[in-house]
Amino acid sequence: MLLLGSSELDRLQVVLVSARNPLNIGAAARAMNNFGFSRLRVVNPYQLAFREARSAVGASEVLRNATEFSSVAEAVADCQLVVGTTAARDRQLRQPLRALPDGGRIIRSRLGSSRIALLFGPEKRGLSNEDLSHCHWLLRIPTCAAHGSMNLGQAVAVCLYDVVRTRGIKTKTEKLAPAAAGEVEAITLRLLEALRASGYVNPQSAASTEAKVRRMVRRLEIPASDTDTWFGIFRQILWKVRKANPS
Amino acid sequence: MLLLGSSELDRLQVVLVSARNPLNIGAAARAMNNFGFSRLRVVNPYQLAFREARSAVGASEVLRNATEFSSVAEAVADCQLVVGTTAARDRQLRQPLRALPDGGRIIRSRLGSSRIALLFGPEKRGLSNEDLSHCHWLLRIPTCAAHGSMNLGQAVAVCLYDVVRTRGIKTKTEKLAPAAAGEVEAITLRLLEALRASGYVNPQSAASTEAKVRRMVRRLEIPASDTDTWFGIFRQILWKVRKANPS
Repeated sequence: MLLLGSSELDRLQVVLVSARNPLNIGAAARAMNNFGFSRLRVVNPYQLAFREARSAVGASEVLRNATEFSSVAEAVADCQLVVGTTAARDRQLRQPLRALPDGGRIIRSRLGSSRIALLFGPEKRGLSNEDLSHCHWLLRIPTCAAHGSMNLGQAVAVCLYDVVRTRGIKTKTEKLAPAAAGEVEAITLRLLEALRASGYVNPQSAASTEAKVRRMVRRLEIPASDTDTWFGIFRQILWKVRKANPS
Repeated sequence: MLLLGSSELDRLQVVLVSARNPLNIGAAARAMNNFGFSRLRVVNPYQLAFREARSAVGASEVLRNATEFSSVAEAVADCQLVVGTTAARDRQLRQPLRALPDGGRIIRSRLGSSRIALLFGPEKRGLSNEDLSHCHWLLRIPTCAAHGSMNLGQAVAVCLYDVVRTRGIKTKTEKLAPAAAGEVEAITLRLLEALRASGYVNPQSAASTEAKVRRMVRRLEIPASDTDTWFGIFRQILWKVRKANPS
């Protein structure tokens, strides 16, 4: 019935960022079970919520095997594609936005070759702009304008259903294998440090500048085979820039 | 974004049969709001659950306007098509069974002319054979064999999403317009100069290193809208790197 094989299903990492309600964490895990996914990552969950969800009677293997991270960067480091879900109504987005079912189709086709992180934000606020700056693009469930925001567990269920849904599989296009998010972030961090040392970053607006640079680096879609060289380039530049600073 | 008009949306009656958990009743109502449906019917709900869900802070109009019935027969009496949802694993079914997304497509097309009841059973057992006997056909969400049974609120969300899902409409391709070669080269030149000033480029092999960096920058496919920023970044770094060199 489902078109994805188990190795493809295992490439999708469901990442819950700062989830607060144990029922929602449990519901996300249940939906993953329903649609054959098993890799759950949690970033800074409210500890009580996470422990409660994990120790609930009937907590699934998905939940027991969930891995915990203290930042989005770490949680997505080994993924080649990072997609953030958003209700996308009340803020300006800086990344490409795709709606289901198109976005689901793209994720489905990319699972043939890439490890993908699919991020869901906390119940009240959704993903922050900083969280979103780690994403290559954003995914929206086509909800009504007046009631755009979905319950977390339901949003996970709808997205996962759409990814496995039998329909319109496209053959994947040949493209250079993209770098994993961790490699991209390592490059980003060296670049950011060089920019700070160069005086490019104004301390007043450092956070937004850095988020902007992070998004811009993601838009480059750095090929995996080029990451070592880029890393070396920025390491060298950083070394030199630091030399220019009196310390 | 959604293909169904309001009169079509109003023709779908979501019918919860013997729902027990107020959170699930609330979740069903929330998913209806998300996807534009407003007609909720409840059959023999656990009274306490239903009252609790209805009086919850923030209970939606959908929930407040829900109508109550004491039998499935009454709840579906004015509908031309009655569809029952089922996990359909462990019992013999006597009706035609359709899976999503095919079943969703049929419901969507029938909403143009018919009032349709979509039935969801209670949390533990699902719809009984007696309940199902009121249905024209049965709808199954394509879940895994090992974890077939979905949470009620999530099942409602997935079914309603599938009914309203915008078929075949592509969100416009999100590929950003690429920078012109001249802009890419201007960025490349500043980067190369920074690399020379940083000692990254070995004079013996300068030509091949520079050609390699040039190709690598092209592989980034820098978006046109980012070129000014990249240019500024490398100009600033170059300025700083030069300061580190005794001249």
